[in-house]
Amino acid sequence: MTAAVELARAAKQASRALATLPTTQKDEALRKAAQALRKNAKVIARVNAQDVAEAKKAKQPAAFLDRLTLSGDRIEAMARTLLDIAALPDPVGEVTDSWRRPNGLEVARVRLPLGVVLMIYESRPNVTADAAALCFKSGNAAILRGGSEAFRSNQAIARVLRQALVDSGLPADAVQSVPDTRRETMLDLLQQDSLIDLCIPRGGEGLIRFVAQHARVPVVKHYHGVCHVYVEANADLKMAERIIVNAKTSRPGVCNAAECLLVDRAIAADFLPPAARALRKHGAELRGCEETLRILKAAHVPAKAASPEDFGKEFLDLILAVKVVEDLDAALAHIARFGSEHTEAIVTRSRDAARRFTREVCASAVLVNASTRFNDGGELGLGAEVGISTTRLHAFGPMGLEELTSRKFVVQGDGQVR
Amino acid sequence: MTAAVELARAAKQASRALATLPTTQKDEALRKAAQALRKNAKVIARVNAQDVAEAKKAKQPAAFLDRLTLSGDRIEAMARTLLDIAALPDPVGEVTDSWRRPNGLEVARVRLPLGVVLMIYESRPNVTADAAALCFKSGNAAILRGGSEAFRSNQAIARVLRQALVDSGLPADAVQSVPDTRRETMLDLLQQDSLIDLCIPRGGEGLIRFVAQHARVPVVKHYHGVCHVYVEANADLKMAERIIVNAKTSRPGVCNAAECLLVDRAIAADFLPPAARALRKHGAELRGCEETLRILKAAHVPAKAASPEDFGKEFLDLILAVKVVEDLDAALAHIARFGSEHTEAIVTRSRDAARRFTREVCASAVLVNASTRFNDGGELGLGAEVGISTTRLHAFGPMGLEELTSRKFVVQGDGQVR
Repeated sequence: MTAAVELARAAKQASRALATLPTTQKDEALRKAAQALRKNAKVIARVNAQDVAEAKKAKQPAAFLDRLTLSGDRIEAMARTLLDIAALPDPVGEVTDSWRRPNGLEVARVRLPLGVVLMIYESRPNVTADAAALCFKSGNAAILRGGSEAFRSNQAIARVLRQALVDSGLPADAVQSVPDTRRETMLDLLQQDSLIDLCIPRGGEGLIRFVAQHARVPVVKHYHGVCHVYVEANADLKMAERIIVNAKTSRPGVCNAAECLLVDRAIAADFLPPAARALRKHGAELRGCEETLRILKAAHVPAKAASPEDFGKEFLDLILAVKVVEDLDAALAHIARFGSEHTEAIVTRSRDAARRFTREVCASAVLVNASTRFNDGGELGLGAEVGISTTRLHAFGPMGLEELTSRKFVVQGDGQVR
Repeated sequence: MTAAVELARAAKQASRALATLPTTQKDEALRKAAQALRKNAKVIARVNAQDVAEAKKAKQPAAFLDRLTLSGDRIEAMARTLLDIAALPDPVGEVTDSWRRPNGLEVARVRLPLGVVLMIYESRPNVTADAAALCFKSGNAAILRGGSEAFRSNQAIARVLRQALVDSGLPADAVQSVPDTRRETMLDLLQQDSLIDLCIPRGGEGLIRFVAQHARVPVVKHYHGVCHVYVEANADLKMAERIIVNAKTSRPGVCNAAECLLVDRAIAADFLPPAARALRKHGAELRGCEETLRILKAAHVPAKAASPEDFGKEFLDLILAVKVVEDLDAALAHIARFGSEHTEAIVTRSRDAARRFTREVCASAVLVNASTRFNDGGELGLGAEVGISTTRLHAFGPMGLEELTSRKFVVQGDGQVR
């Protein structure tokens, strides 16, 4: 039996105990885990410093080092997330629907956990605590496989969480961190379709492709966001400016940041110069289509020419592609072609335009007169999320507790036969 | 470009048109398709006769030939299913949830189609019409790949449906039947994860394993049912007898038929002799554990000894494994070990036993005091189904129209930024 199989078996075993755990017991364990993180903050920070030192030696960029670093504040934030998740309603056992059949059968659909969730991620080490807690609260065992750059930090966090489980009289194997970052181990895990119920890969293209290519376990991808903001002919132009500035510049490195601005020809000459100035003031570089450049040049606003590859690109940086489009149809066609089904927004005062946009755009979140940055579990009111699914199957958009469950039919009869 | 890629691309293209089609137009097209099936009943029957003749030559068993045969009645039943599906509510565009955020954002979750569904099946040719209609009504393009034994029949049905789509001014490629039954073509289709959104394999172990092993597209398995009926110590024994007779003998060849009877020791001596007689009267062969055999021998009811492999086996035949268990815990343990997460039933008058059973058993349908045969889309009130999912991800249990959709977040703001 390989290490991966052993790990997956232990997770399956633990998931059986978790599936029927009372809510109070889960919440108590989460609160204990939060305390344990606080108590072990110094140990975690010390171990994390080794990861950071190694990343520095490897000449990783400053933004990378910043994401990797676990300051005291950040460890406190992890602990608070655990407390927040403890306070969320338990999805397991929830009756989402019920009805009575003509023959008297009472049918209900009741939430149950998925079982074992394999989380593969490249991001910050706090994902280890967040994902473990969300899986645990929804009754799932979690197998966590973070990136090699955060290996020690992830292990340290998992150790603290596991001890907290044991202290609560629960199986430690409800949360496991994969003990190495070898690709072979990950490959082996991805084959265990009788033991692992869901794999959530969250990261860059290389990781997602690797997982999609090799997985036999079900996969819900958390992939990139090529998000557009379309300023329609009837938009409130001041509002549109605020929205695109926020969508592009408030946090350019995340998947719900806007990467492309589409501007209706009818208002392009009025809208583009002031909007471009505001964007540039916030540090954004503009890469415009020919017409954009013509308008901006006339207004003396500097901009670069967009190359064909700039459309459909996830810059994850303070760069924005800009294109003037003929009308709503052209905007819809552009989004259908270049969008990534992640997040799309329209700014408009026209009810008809808004209705067509929300109806016809296929994306996990479609927004009217609001920033793309709102496509986030917390912002949409799900409480917390393991990430944003770009797979239409099972979950589309932010995956919160509910999305980590399935539903069974529970039927009450009084002797019915068919 | 291979034939499979061409097919999948055409499906993706058609799915875009389908996604926003008004309900009335879809329903009208379904009614036209029903008429077309009626009008072409003789042609379909004639083509089907060739499939049947070939199966006869290949010395297929009578039950197989029966399932393959499309009589006039069965073609009429297909037409009526299309009309039934036309009459069902359209899931697309349905707002399943909505709420307001403190910042004024109005969040709604709105159903949208999955996109392109690849259906791989071995069963009767009527699945071709049923699956096509369910996919179409839920706004999905369907790629249908039936078994080679029904190849001509499936092609003939698909031809009629495609012509009906064209007559309704809709893209014929919304419904496509794979033009050959070569494994290579199926393999090629299973790789098209950028074009196909879901694969539903429905059939025997060989088919399911093949698909699971090779698919890069998401798969929701429709696998076997090893269904138990547990007669608890407080059961109404008359009711229990009616239920097990129905669950085992009303249609032994289907996945929601019972394969194993678990009897609580406390009532085994009272329950087993009359129940066994009733089962035998309906043609069932009993394969009992030692204690079952002892009780039945004393009552002069013939039964065979169960081999270890008889537990956890899907007989799909008039054979029933029977085991006496110590108590509810032992029954739950037996089901956890040998069940297939398909359908499980308890017969009891005890509320506590029923509550524990429905809570602790992991199966797509868990029934109290009713036959396992009710785990069926029509019987549970979903209207119709493409099959019964045994995968917990996305859909668990009968997959109706709703289960062929996903949900997007639609957010209405008035200028909110983050």
